[in-house]
Amino acid sequence: MSTKKEEISEWFRQLQHNICTELEAEDGKAKFVEDNWERPGGGGGRTRVIQHGNAFEKGGVNFSAVHGELSENIVKALGISSNEFFATGVSIVIHPINPFVPIIHMNVRYFELADGTYWFGGGIDLTPHYVQEADARFFHSQLKIACDKFDAAYYSKFKNWADDYFFIPHRKETRGVGGIFFDRLKEDSSKSKTDIWNFVQAVGETFAPTYRHIVSKNKNQPYSDSNLQWRNLRRGRYVEFNLVYDKGTKFGLETDGRVESILMSLPENASWFYNFEPEPNGAEARTLALLVKGTDWASN
Amino acid sequence: MSTKKEEISEWFRQLQHNICTELEAEDGKAKFVEDNWERPGGGGGRTRVIQHGNAFEKGGVNFSAVHGELSENIVKALGISSNEFFATGVSIVIHPINPFVPIIHMNVRYFELADGTYWFGGGIDLTPHYVQEADARFFHSQLKIACDKFDAAYYSKFKNWADDYFFIPHRKETRGVGGIFFDRLKEDSSKSKTDIWNFVQAVGETFAPTYRHIVSKNKNQPYSDSNLQWRNLRRGRYVEFNLVYDKGTKFGLETDGRVESILMSLPENASWFYNFEPEPNGAEARTLALLVKGTDWASN
Repeated sequence: MSTKKEEISEWFRQLQHNICTELEAEDGKAKFVEDNWERPGGGGGRTRVIQHGNAFEKGGVNFSAVHGELSENIVKALGISSNEFFATGVSIVIHPINPFVPIIHMNVRYFELADGTYWFGGGIDLTPHYVQEADARFFHSQLKIACDKFDAAYYSKFKNWADDYFFIPHRKETRGVGGIFFDRLKEDSSKSKTDIWNFVQAVGETFAPTYRHIVSKNKNQPYSDSNLQWRNLRRGRYVEFNLVYDKGTKFGLETDGRVESILMSLPENASWFYNFEPEPNGAEARTLALLVKGTDWASN
Repeated sequence: MSTKKEEISEWFRQLQHNICTELEAEDGKAKFVEDNWERPGGGGGRTRVIQHGNAFEKGGVNFSAVHGELSENIVKALGISSNEFFATGVSIVIHPINPFVPIIHMNVRYFELADGTYWFGGGIDLTPHYVQEADARFFHSQLKIACDKFDAAYYSKFKNWADDYFFIPHRKETRGVGGIFFDRLKEDSSKSKTDIWNFVQAVGETFAPTYRHIVSKNKNQPYSDSNLQWRNLRRGRYVEFNLVYDKGTKFGLETDGRVESILMSLPENASWFYNFEPEPNGAEARTLALLVKGTDWASN
């Protein structure tokens, strides 16, 4: 498949559509609503949001293809030589209703400058309100399968990168059970641009079947008010990560991006209780103990 | 009164206590719970939190007096020449239950370096979920009275500073109806250190009677579920400001401060609905129209 920017972008647009179709089928009730928007500086996007479903309380699947000129600050921060850019990708965050269904995030993206510089980036990570080890293992094993087809070193490298990226320093907690994260991926002596693009496509295609399996398994589990309270506290941590640390959110807000598309990642509601301490040895404390870097979720 | 750092700190500690007593009296049900904490690098604080009262859902009144060495990054960012610091102050955020009672914030603080450099800073601002013009005028007139006793230029200067500081650029909204904000205040040809300290004390003493008046007037107003929903959306904006822009929050998180004391400013719950648009001409739309810089609230 061609790696021209128009075709990469068109593939991402189709990926957005396919994922929305899969998520609607899994939910069985709510439908995505669509907003098409234009970016004043060039390009635009198609934001799709699902709300108040059977399984999903609030979720967004965003496609965008934007172009224009980067500010001097950003050119400096990225260490690049040209300021005429093109960027396209799909970005997803889903907040489920049932506390035993994890939050999921995926982003796959392509960036190109007028001088021909380009790179791919992406990531996918799972944030269970309650860590269920079987789900974490399934999730990581699916990511490892996608990675291993392209490079035996990818999974381990990108898994560690996700551990470092999806981390909340002030809480000394990982956001969830991690996943993979990669950036500035481009051709080298062992891989062509097409190889890299095929890998990014494989990551994108892993999303729907992997998440549907986990949602389907847990969406009808019974839960209590105290499970909901804990879900909302964990959502509060998600808000902390996205607003304080997430680079995509910062970049979007600083470059005057479409706020409602950027902040669709925030949950419908989130809670903060002062100095909340879970009961020792309860399911909440067990989850906290697993929110650490370096867990090997993919072997056996 | 002396302006030695120990005495400034002791006055702040007493201010915290007095404000807690006043707020408990206004609430009539909940009592503050206290956590004393030590900072690994030196000093500590006394955090007091009120929860689930008649009037207040969650509020914190924090006193701290910390000392130690600033990192090179912070020394550079502050443009100072010494890294041995002492900092003391009181910091308050109150989230009421009734949507017609505004959120309030105050911070008064003193900072000193080993080389004798010092400054005072502070601010107080009001964030109504529904702007009631009479309350905004009362609030600003009380701040103007406190300022005018010390310098005829203070109110106007510090009011504009608050308009600029308590602003959410990505929403193009002020956080609320503003108040006053000042920083790096020290003696000059017209004022002694004692003059400045007296001003900061006057600001601190304005808090309790001013907020009690506004709480007392509104706390029994009837409200609907849709008023509560709007309250939670406005709380979402408060979370966005505090996590993305607030300098005190950033400083605290970056210097490994006590997270639960820093983030006691966050509400018990907050909401984000995708692309929420208030009804035209309703109370919510009227509030949004008033969340702009430059409103003159102090001249009748």
